[in-house]
Amino acid sequence: MIFRSHMHLALDEARAAAARGEVPVGAVVVSPAGEVLARAGNRTRELNDPTAHAEMLAIRTACARTGSERLTGCDLYVTLEPCPACAAVISAARIARLYYGAADPKSGGVAQGPRIFSHPQAHHVPEVYDGIASDDAADLLKDFFAARR
Amino acid sequence: MIFRSHMHLALDEARAAAARGEVPVGAVVVSPAGEVLARAGNRTRELNDPTAHAEMLAIRTACARTGSERLTGCDLYVTLEPCPACAAVISAARIARLYYGAADPKSGGVAQGPRIFSHPQAHHVPEVYDGIASDDAADLLKDFFAARR
Repeated sequence: MIFRSHMHLALDEARAAAARGEVPVGAVVVSPAGEVLARAGNRTRELNDPTAHAEMLAIRTACARTGSERLTGCDLYVTLEPCPACAAVISAARIARLYYGAADPKSGGVAQGPRIFSHPQAHHVPEVYDGIASDDAADLLKDFFAARR
Repeated sequence: MIFRSHMHLALDEARAAAARGEVPVGAVVVSPAGEVLARAGNRTRELNDPTAHAEMLAIRTACARTGSERLTGCDLYVTLEPCPACAAVISAARIARLYYGAADPKSGGVAQGPRIFSHPQAHHVPEVYDGIASDDAADLLKDFFAARR
């Protein structure tokens, strides 16, 4: 299935992030035609930038590439439930479908906490599909944090 | 009062944004010693970047300048109530005090909608002071949108 291979790209980005000492989360933006427009992993530590989450970097790259602040019709694959900031940017960028892996009870903003897409202040609500390859994504995170203790 | 002059800097950034054809919102980050670390206005259109809100740009610049992904003890002044994405980044950056001008019922994420700071997924909650020079900030926005109709 197409979405599996896109999530595998996102998992590759998460693994690359872990190898850089970053929390292993990866994201991929796919155009309506199925082209991978951008792929990114977390770089908050490397860039000293609290906004350098995988989702935000991938969305910013895809926007720069398409010359638009909106990614209408595009899909986002991310290995972990987006935080509230990323969820709000996903809405602002008009992402059509959000596919994510593991749930994030501690910091997530889609299915818990502020539930960004459930308020009228979210001017666009993507279709949301959770639990995609979630064991792989969760294992990456567990291994990363276990190795740092 | 110090916070008035910092908000006036933020209003100057909002005016400069309007002159560039951007929604007029401005933000300033101030260090614990009172130094202006960064000032920015919206640049979403110029940069084709849905994350290029005044608050995010100012926080990213201040983080780059201080070499840290956290701005512990710093204050943020912004002319409009932050959106959910910016509010979540303000929390992630450990901003100590948030001063804002006009309320934003349509897109705000602090005092309405997702109320980002009211959930346990916000790992840091700043002190929040609203209504600072709010008439000036609101007038800028009204004039901007009236001129575009």
